[in-house]
Amino acid sequence: MDPTYACDLAAIEEARERIRDHVHLTPVITCQALDDISGRQLFFKCENLQKVGAFKFRGATNAVLTLTDEQAAHGVVTHSSGNHAQAVALAAQTRGIAAHIVMPSNAPSIKRAAVEGYGARVISCEPTLEARESTAREVIARTGASFIHPYNDARVIAGQGTTALELLEQVPGLDAIITPVGGGGLVSGVSIVCRSLAPGIKVLAAEPAGADDAARSMEAGELIPQRAPSTIADGLLTSLGDLTWPIIRDHVERIVRVDDQAIIAAMKIFWQRAKLVIEPSAATALAPLLDDSLADLDADRVGVILSGGNVDLEKLPWQNGTGP
Amino acid sequence: MDPTYACDLAAIEEARERIRDHVHLTPVITCQALDDISGRQLFFKCENLQKVGAFKFRGATNAVLTLTDEQAAHGVVTHSSGNHAQAVALAAQTRGIAAHIVMPSNAPSIKRAAVEGYGARVISCEPTLEARESTAREVIARTGASFIHPYNDARVIAGQGTTALELLEQVPGLDAIITPVGGGGLVSGVSIVCRSLAPGIKVLAAEPAGADDAARSMEAGELIPQRAPSTIADGLLTSLGDLTWPIIRDHVERIVRVDDQAIIAAMKIFWQRAKLVIEPSAATALAPLLDDSLADLDADRVGVILSGGNVDLEKLPWQNGTGP
Repeated sequence: MDPTYACDLAAIEEARERIRDHVHLTPVITCQALDDISGRQLFFKCENLQKVGAFKFRGATNAVLTLTDEQAAHGVVTHSSGNHAQAVALAAQTRGIAAHIVMPSNAPSIKRAAVEGYGARVISCEPTLEARESTAREVIARTGASFIHPYNDARVIAGQGTTALELLEQVPGLDAIITPVGGGGLVSGVSIVCRSLAPGIKVLAAEPAGADDAARSMEAGELIPQRAPSTIADGLLTSLGDLTWPIIRDHVERIVRVDDQAIIAAMKIFWQRAKLVIEPSAATALAPLLDDSLADLDADRVGVILSGGNVDLEKLPWQNGTGP
Repeated sequence: MDPTYACDLAAIEEARERIRDHVHLTPVITCQALDDISGRQLFFKCENLQKVGAFKFRGATNAVLTLTDEQAAHGVVTHSSGNHAQAVALAAQTRGIAAHIVMPSNAPSIKRAAVEGYGARVISCEPTLEARESTAREVIARTGASFIHPYNDARVIAGQGTTALELLEQVPGLDAIITPVGGGGLVSGVSIVCRSLAPGIKVLAAEPAGADDAARSMEAGELIPQRAPSTIADGLLTSLGDLTWPIIRDHVERIVRVDDQAIIAAMKIFWQRAKLVIEPSAATALAPLLDDSLADLDADRVGVILSGGNVDLEKLPWQNGTGP
């Protein structure tokens, strides 16, 4: 990564111009039934309707388009079995460059096929973080490809922050914005935008109780990595990075823990009432607004960033015995 | 019903003004992945995002608001276990009048609860058409309530036709519009609008192969009622009525049969790629655009009316052994 690439509002505004022709300006929807339950006005920023079905396409596209032509000629590489993998694959295909995606050998074949469907090359490795990182290093050594981290990368954070630039224009007068937090790229970008443009807006992050490294880090005042995460929200298993942690520490008002039962219930009621498919990670941001988790939050108009909508329709969480 | 209430464009335009403040102007969405499969540009009119989750709320609202104050004081009645029941219940609640909904005793308790949730009174009866009709007549005799038929009613047809008024404004230059057909209220209203305002637009209807009375009626040139329907599309089991049949006969270009496998596959891929929850009846209109059923249709820009999004999330059709 270009070490001069900053994490600030200017970088996010530049990212917006850079990616504008390639990403969807996603709609904001409302749902009276959910407003009635929450006692607030909720404005849902629908990144489940983004290309590849997740906000991840914003950051990946910004990173790919930031490369010089010489860098781009060597392609890009990442390791992921989730939405970031598809996002990098499609972003690279859009620029017409090679993408190498390192995926654990136990990744579902449907995810591998999706990445290959975007023209990327998949390199299988053992399902450990060490194997993923060493395999990615081998690819870099062999090809000269540029590595695009899923969240601990200023270009990626800047891309994710464009969700907030759009949301602030689409919905004036918000009192708070809540996002899910895994590695922290999304909430980092969102919080930079809000602190710069609308400091009165409270920025909150919702985190699975079974992967609560952000909440524990905030309580301890230092970065505490996640060990052995366990949650239905498969997009939120990762730890904060050394780039996202200080941004979150300085700019995020509160991290709220959400248990899996509440995530599943929020996902189901959103499908039923809003008729939109969201994944568990997205439902994590909605869940605390539907019970008394945020009872003391003084905020009538709340933006909720729905991070994605990629789910396995054969295995829905309320059907496998873990549901409410 | 007021015998002077006509089935024409003026009635539909009046209906639009009458219901404007009560119904959602639903969005039209597009999906590149589905365009690629179909080889056409598809514009989805999202009645799954309408109040009560279905276009039925338009017709019910128009019927309820057409009543005189004296009629309204006696309430309304219908027999239905589907979306029309909820639609009449909410429309009556909005006007502040009583709604009596006759439901078969074997209707799912969740549907009964939804109707009661809108403040309606549910009257249970034996699960036969005769019992439903005789029970409704008893309610009318006792209360003086006005009967609102789910489709064979000019006020209802006019309300459903407002979907097409909106769609024509939202998407200029359509070559064809396709809707599902059960009792025919929706496609009747849509075809009246198109014949009057845009006669070049082909109006098609998609019908489950296991409930194909409209297709058989068109082939025979006379109304042939449906007997023993069998399809996953539970909103399309009914027969055409004596009001909808001649409109369809005169104004609909083609009825296309769709088997349940294709309905289920279309529903699933729409959830996966467009991230919107649609019910089997809505998927029926999409299905023939995804295979070669309409290969000879000369139409690049096609409007697809997604009739509703009410499904039982515990029992999805691709999970019960009938799916593809």
